[in-house]
Amino acid sequence: MAGTIPKSLRLDVNNLMADTLGGGYGVDAGAVERWRPRAEAALKAVQSSRGQGWLGWMDLPAQPESLLDDIEAMAERIRLNYDAFVLLGIGGSALGPICVNEALRPPRYNELPKARRGGPRMYFEDNIDPERMASLRAVVDFRDACFNVITKSGGTAETMSQYLYVRDALRDNPRWRDQVVATTSGVKGLLLDIARLEGLKTFVIPEGVGGRFSELCPVGLLAAAVGGADIRALLKGAADMDARCATPELWKNPALLEAALMAVASVEMGRNIQVMMPYADSLRMVSNWFVQLWAESLGKLVNRAGAVVNAGQTPVGALGVTDQHSQLQLYSEGPFDKVITMMKVETFREETAIPRAPEDYPGDIRFLGGLTHSQLIEAERFGTEYALTRAKRMNQTIILPEVSEYTLGQLLYFFEMVTAYMGELLDVDAFNQPGVEASKIATYAKLGHPAERYAEARSALAAAPERDARYII
Amino acid sequence: MAGTIPKSLRLDVNNLMADTLGGGYGVDAGAVERWRPRAEAALKAVQSSRGQGWLGWMDLPAQPESLLDDIEAMAERIRLNYDAFVLLGIGGSALGPICVNEALRPPRYNELPKARRGGPRMYFEDNIDPERMASLRAVVDFRDACFNVITKSGGTAETMSQYLYVRDALRDNPRWRDQVVATTSGVKGLLLDIARLEGLKTFVIPEGVGGRFSELCPVGLLAAAVGGADIRALLKGAADMDARCATPELWKNPALLEAALMAVASVEMGRNIQVMMPYADSLRMVSNWFVQLWAESLGKLVNRAGAVVNAGQTPVGALGVTDQHSQLQLYSEGPFDKVITMMKVETFREETAIPRAPEDYPGDIRFLGGLTHSQLIEAERFGTEYALTRAKRMNQTIILPEVSEYTLGQLLYFFEMVTAYMGELLDVDAFNQPGVEASKIATYAKLGHPAERYAEARSALAAAPERDARYII
Repeated sequence: MAGTIPKSLRLDVNNLMADTLGGGYGVDAGAVERWRPRAEAALKAVQSSRGQGWLGWMDLPAQPESLLDDIEAMAERIRLNYDAFVLLGIGGSALGPICVNEALRPPRYNELPKARRGGPRMYFEDNIDPERMASLRAVVDFRDACFNVITKSGGTAETMSQYLYVRDALRDNPRWRDQVVATTSGVKGLLLDIARLEGLKTFVIPEGVGGRFSELCPVGLLAAAVGGADIRALLKGAADMDARCATPELWKNPALLEAALMAVASVEMGRNIQVMMPYADSLRMVSNWFVQLWAESLGKLVNRAGAVVNAGQTPVGALGVTDQHSQLQLYSEGPFDKVITMMKVETFREETAIPRAPEDYPGDIRFLGGLTHSQLIEAERFGTEYALTRAKRMNQTIILPEVSEYTLGQLLYFFEMVTAYMGELLDVDAFNQPGVEASKIATYAKLGHPAERYAEARSALAAAPERDARYII
Repeated sequence: MAGTIPKSLRLDVNNLMADTLGGGYGVDAGAVERWRPRAEAALKAVQSSRGQGWLGWMDLPAQPESLLDDIEAMAERIRLNYDAFVLLGIGGSALGPICVNEALRPPRYNELPKARRGGPRMYFEDNIDPERMASLRAVVDFRDACFNVITKSGGTAETMSQYLYVRDALRDNPRWRDQVVATTSGVKGLLLDIARLEGLKTFVIPEGVGGRFSELCPVGLLAAAVGGADIRALLKGAADMDARCATPELWKNPALLEAALMAVASVEMGRNIQVMMPYADSLRMVSNWFVQLWAESLGKLVNRAGAVVNAGQTPVGALGVTDQHSQLQLYSEGPFDKVITMMKVETFREETAIPRAPEDYPGDIRFLGGLTHSQLIEAERFGTEYALTRAKRMNQTIILPEVSEYTLGQLLYFFEMVTAYMGELLDVDAFNQPGVEASKIATYAKLGHPAERYAEARSALAAAPERDARYII
């Protein structure tokens, strides 16, 4: 029983099932049984390749003590010496760090006085909007900031352009190199070359760890530790979830069961959208992290045999209760094309009581007085669950006893394992991203990059027909 | 020609069309012609009811000078007298104010020194997470803050609970009422009753203006003016777009054409997801505002004849270039179930140059030096457009000459008109939201509200079967 494992994440799939929703609207036992052989094969494929190839992230829960010591020492140095920590990265190099820091730090962290923060203000620069870039100078004294540049290949134009910008801004300080930490491949790549050339402090992204699976390596751990998080508890959460997700019993393995249910939902039932809806502001960015993981891993043109499949459930981020007031109407009355995944927090780290209304106040407002916001937010989540279920909309709830390093480590690792299993069930390569290459080539060609490898794209752009003016209004 | 209208928003639909994408992947001329009679009827229906019923928002571009004067005077008083402005609202009472302020204020506004801001720090409290509620006290001195409570009915539990919380916190100040502004119905409702009882300064939400269409009424205008925006330019933008969207020529009416194209895309071609992807951090929250407008207006169980239709394209927010690194893989290789709508800004309000790399730096990083971030962000948007188009994915671009009050007014009003026309084309009531009622009732029943109107729900909850423990792992 889940209740006997303290602070363990629980997955409640009651409202995905035909037993609850009725046949035709929920997953029936027969469908799960049909997928069982594939699920068992998926488990075997993933577990037998643990740590190999692109499954290097499965080794992250058990990283060497010496590496963790090094990360913690660096984080402590940054906490003591700098007023601001600026992470330069995009996609997998930013979403994990943002998500963990938003979850674990106090809200409105950067606005708190230094004593309440205990560490530097933190900035995650995952876009190249020039207005945003310029504004960083308005709030961060670059002389008093540490910059963590993260890209595995070093070929990420956005991040490398930011690095050049920062390097130029720091150049008057002969010791500027002390202010920069590079997190990159330990084997090859532009950022590694530059880090060696400049003698920058470097952390290694292991070879078998892709961007979207990198939160639990130094990509995420350094930023988490700078933000004051206990990174060992984060990894312990991941390790404990890893054990649960390795069990061969389908109905005791949360990730394998979830993958099987999502396979039935998307492949057999046309539920090709998954809404990720935490009922906690602290978990808002978990949705964004999940969106990348799910979209980029499973959104694939071809299966592993090379046949065109155009796979991929579209993930959508939402926030409870806020988005009840923007999206619930569509979810409960629109097309039957969605699964809604809620997250419920059992104990919040703060509580606010709703004071009683004056005696002469009218109506329902007097009913609210005496409740707490924890009660209200959970009652609203329950109300949404109830309404969706009554409207026969597939929904499920991930229950976190609290938001902490330990539960967050479980949560992120759970999603990673679901994704790995789902890749097997869909028979796609969950660890590549061939579809973004065409965009990168066109970008460089558009900018006039002279290299031979862009010649074909340059010609194609030059030969492209004019846009039809009728279609621009 | 668009170029002859200065600072006018342009809509480029080339990449939605069969002429560009090829038949089967794009909208062909025949499809538009088939929808033309319905589009013309939609135009007539909307324009002939202008200002009536739930089309009251069509009158907002031309509000009385005296009201604008009053809003500006109140905003000036707030700007001069308070360190913080806190908006209490949710859904339509918050998304518009957030979106306009994010677009028009400098980035990281609250962290700027007072002199750079010129007005109070601003907080938009659109959730009831207790951790977030409690944290407000850590950064805002309630004695030095103005609170704008917004709910048309006054029946919004989230907002009214926040009002009670703030009222209680302020109660030691005999003049606390000066710190609270109520924005609500002018006719009836709990908040109106309370505002009268307490003698609060009140702004009126006109009767024919629903929450998601309320940005250009005092709901959004007061917050915009407090943030330093020129609300008359915002309304001028809306008025100019209103004129364009009233023209009976389909190919000259951007909102009517857009609605027709989205009707073909979603109803005939199964493109039942629309991704809204601005390439500018300042426009990020326009996506969230659009998501509510589109989801809640068009996501409907029944059409106006009462037949079950389960209508509604699912809107998804994304941000360029950031989400190229999280979602582009899915968009370019996954199911053909999407339209991707990009927003392009022609001139940013700031520019950052990418400095040249040292001579001894390797590879592509040297190519970046000398470019600007404006060039890079637009080249990346172009690259995404090119890759999507090559993969035969329907995409379009809204071009803003700049982000300003005037262009933003055009943009928001454009989306409102598209939504109104789309409601006609789908034959659904775009102005109600019956699907959220069941959730509200279940919430109150769960909390044990004793009123007779919740009796049935209380019984239903009491009689609900236990959750199946097998399905909780």
